[in-house]
Amino acid sequence: MEKVFPLTTAFAEAIVSSKPLLDQAAVSAARTAIVDWLACAYGGSGDRTTTILLEQLPKAEGRAVIVGRRVRADALTAALINGHAGHVLDYDDVHASVRGHPTTVIIPALLALASEVRLTADRLIAAYIVGLEAMARLGLSIGMRHYENGFHATATLGTIGAAAAVAHALGYSITETTTALGLAATHSSGLRLQFGHDAKPYHAGMAARSGLLSAKLAKAGFGGAQDLLDNPIGFHSAFSFGEERPQAVVEGWGSPWQIVAPGLTLKAFPCCTASHPVAMIGLQLHGEGLHPHLIDEVVFTFPPGGDAALVVTNPTTGIDARFSAEYVFATALIDGVLKIGHFGETPVRDDLVAVARRVRRRHDDTAPRLSSDPKTRFVIADVTLTDGRRFTREFKGLPGLTDPSDKFRDATGNDKVASTVPELVQRMHSEEDLDLLLERLGHPPDLIHFQETQGMHA
Amino acid sequence: MEKVFPLTTAFAEAIVSSKPLLDQAAVSAARTAIVDWLACAYGGSGDRTTTILLEQLPKAEGRAVIVGRRVRADALTAALINGHAGHVLDYDDVHASVRGHPTTVIIPALLALASEVRLTADRLIAAYIVGLEAMARLGLSIGMRHYENGFHATATLGTIGAAAAVAHALGYSITETTTALGLAATHSSGLRLQFGHDAKPYHAGMAARSGLLSAKLAKAGFGGAQDLLDNPIGFHSAFSFGEERPQAVVEGWGSPWQIVAPGLTLKAFPCCTASHPVAMIGLQLHGEGLHPHLIDEVVFTFPPGGDAALVVTNPTTGIDARFSAEYVFATALIDGVLKIGHFGETPVRDDLVAVARRVRRRHDDTAPRLSSDPKTRFVIADVTLTDGRRFTREFKGLPGLTDPSDKFRDATGNDKVASTVPELVQRMHSEEDLDLLLERLGHPPDLIHFQETQGMHA
Repeated sequence: MEKVFPLTTAFAEAIVSSKPLLDQAAVSAARTAIVDWLACAYGGSGDRTTTILLEQLPKAEGRAVIVGRRVRADALTAALINGHAGHVLDYDDVHASVRGHPTTVIIPALLALASEVRLTADRLIAAYIVGLEAMARLGLSIGMRHYENGFHATATLGTIGAAAAVAHALGYSITETTTALGLAATHSSGLRLQFGHDAKPYHAGMAARSGLLSAKLAKAGFGGAQDLLDNPIGFHSAFSFGEERPQAVVEGWGSPWQIVAPGLTLKAFPCCTASHPVAMIGLQLHGEGLHPHLIDEVVFTFPPGGDAALVVTNPTTGIDARFSAEYVFATALIDGVLKIGHFGETPVRDDLVAVARRVRRRHDDTAPRLSSDPKTRFVIADVTLTDGRRFTREFKGLPGLTDPSDKFRDATGNDKVASTVPELVQRMHSEEDLDLLLERLGHPPDLIHFQETQGMHA
Repeated sequence: MEKVFPLTTAFAEAIVSSKPLLDQAAVSAARTAIVDWLACAYGGSGDRTTTILLEQLPKAEGRAVIVGRRVRADALTAALINGHAGHVLDYDDVHASVRGHPTTVIIPALLALASEVRLTADRLIAAYIVGLEAMARLGLSIGMRHYENGFHATATLGTIGAAAAVAHALGYSITETTTALGLAATHSSGLRLQFGHDAKPYHAGMAARSGLLSAKLAKAGFGGAQDLLDNPIGFHSAFSFGEERPQAVVEGWGSPWQIVAPGLTLKAFPCCTASHPVAMIGLQLHGEGLHPHLIDEVVFTFPPGGDAALVVTNPTTGIDARFSAEYVFATALIDGVLKIGHFGETPVRDDLVAVARRVRRRHDDTAPRLSSDPKTRFVIADVTLTDGRRFTREFKGLPGLTDPSDKFRDATGNDKVASTVPELVQRMHSEEDLDLLLERLGHPPDLIHFQETQGMHA
């Protein structure tokens, strides 16, 4: 084939011809990220909104697994539900190049694909690394205004990343791959307008479904543009507001892999990232044995903009509480742990509210405004006790999570079947391993309580 | 409810509270447009790409009709297939305010809805007029760069128009309506990059499906943003490139209805609009009895840009031939008619090619460049006969179509069941009328040849 569209072709060639399994650091990061994502998907599988989607989407036959549910679905619907469930707690990984959440788009598409086409687990891991690479490099190419003007990059870029992952997994030709990428781009949607609403996690599912569908249509002979990145009215013209750097989609591809550097950030706590430094201070004081009754007042000092996302002061349910510095601090101090159960639909506990009421916030207007540079993030706690004593604690930056084992256990409650999943993900290679994983994911852990919908075929 | 989001609320109120059935001109235009769209959908129902979609989309149970097919599907899939089929010939109506094709998005969504919820035909017509109004006014609000920078307005605006139509049809509350509109906007996608590819008509189907799904989710309690048109990072921030005029979404709503003025343009011939003046000259010469053998040369003079869309000079199949001035002229001259069959997947006829080879094009560089002003469009034919005689014919503007009866017969071949459809559409009012229409649409006319897919439930 004559390469009349050099950039789109180079992007497709990189997607198809990559050999990420040769890089042990990438494979190891991928296995850990999959365990972390599965914790999030189990945690979100019983959510009210996950149930609505199961009820409202067409009742289609299929063998694709919904994580933590007994029902099976067609591959497209399963990709959507799992993508949503994996993001609904906002507990899943983020990637700086994407400016969003790659795993909860790409892995659901690949798990759904594996219900229709036998894949080795190695191939799924390779395809995930490649899909994330494609998504992250699109993120580097697209400029800042894409996000700032209102697009949700998790969805808009994720659709293409998911299609790239499927194209790699199935060994598509260059033409099939460029067609799949172009079809995916023509599905790219998702507005930041929906942040804070049920539609935000839905975006991840929508992107997983669209990417998989685009790849399937391309393989089935449905025709599409071959010049996504070369056409003057192509992807960047529509989505970059003049800030595009198209060559970034291939520059430095896989050297190192984006999953290795800058790498994924796994979330340590099931609440808003901006509250994590506050959580660390609460956990520290818990560890020091500070009794909540002794507290007269806690004043948190943030950099300007440092608590902008923490819009809730007096939460009524755990859902609101995800965005409350006060509640997060009180929970960490009293319980010494932040679990998914702290942030559910139930009303907040009175003992937590009592401490949360003693918290105030202020800003240090002399500090640099919070930016994407993690060094600009800090929280200082000035604590006054009822006996008049005062002391200060500080946390800079964000806590990281390198081992999602506790997070996984929190989501699955030491359920017998689920508890075997992390070890399986760490060692899986073959088709049989992946089959076994899919089978186990379809067992709802004991602690996940929901009405199994009648909408899907059991 | 407190109106904290005035423009979004006003838009939703206009959608919900409109009474378009009081305007006879609007209702009459709607009935004619539905007949015209059905002709297009019958014509596209056997297309290769329609079959691919039927095969690749999940096999879901449902009672929704696919026009011209015996199979039934779930509502979302039917909306998608019918939207695609209605646009695949590029023979369906266009609207200047939309800068695209409204009917092939909105009507498929409403027909699919009617398979799940009993509606009167009157209500369907009212919802169609309202959905088109919403879509057209969004088009007026969004500015020129939306389309110019690469978005396909049929899809991006159609998704919201379809959701608006469903919200009107089902009498949604203001909150349900704003939620549905916001969910629809977060599905808004479709790139002009795909023009000339199978994905272009798919965009219409995608928008029909997304609009219907958004409305269903909103009704089911799935939450979404209420401030689509008021949020500073809302719809216009993402899609208008700074050229938005948000108030245009409600200014002059229904006075007159957009379906009345500027009104829909129904396509007279099943080929590219830019070729229609050439077709008119060919038909005129056919009417004058000009024998093709007598032609030595025909030179067409276009305004600058007047034939930019007619990218094919030597077509090999009828599909290419849709974009060939030469083939369109030859067909009109020799056959005296332009039918769907002239523009199918079969190779072009030798006798048409022989005349097409005698056609040349030139441009009058002194004329104003072709613009959206129809007065800038003209074609002059300078004909030289083999005996040396010369004469000139000219056509200005575009031919209109006010009565789609012949077009409908061309698409359905006087099939007994289908032939009753136009009259039924013209007189339908009740639930029973709409039920009857849906039943009749599910009968494939004799002339439509395709393999009924095994993929759907019969």
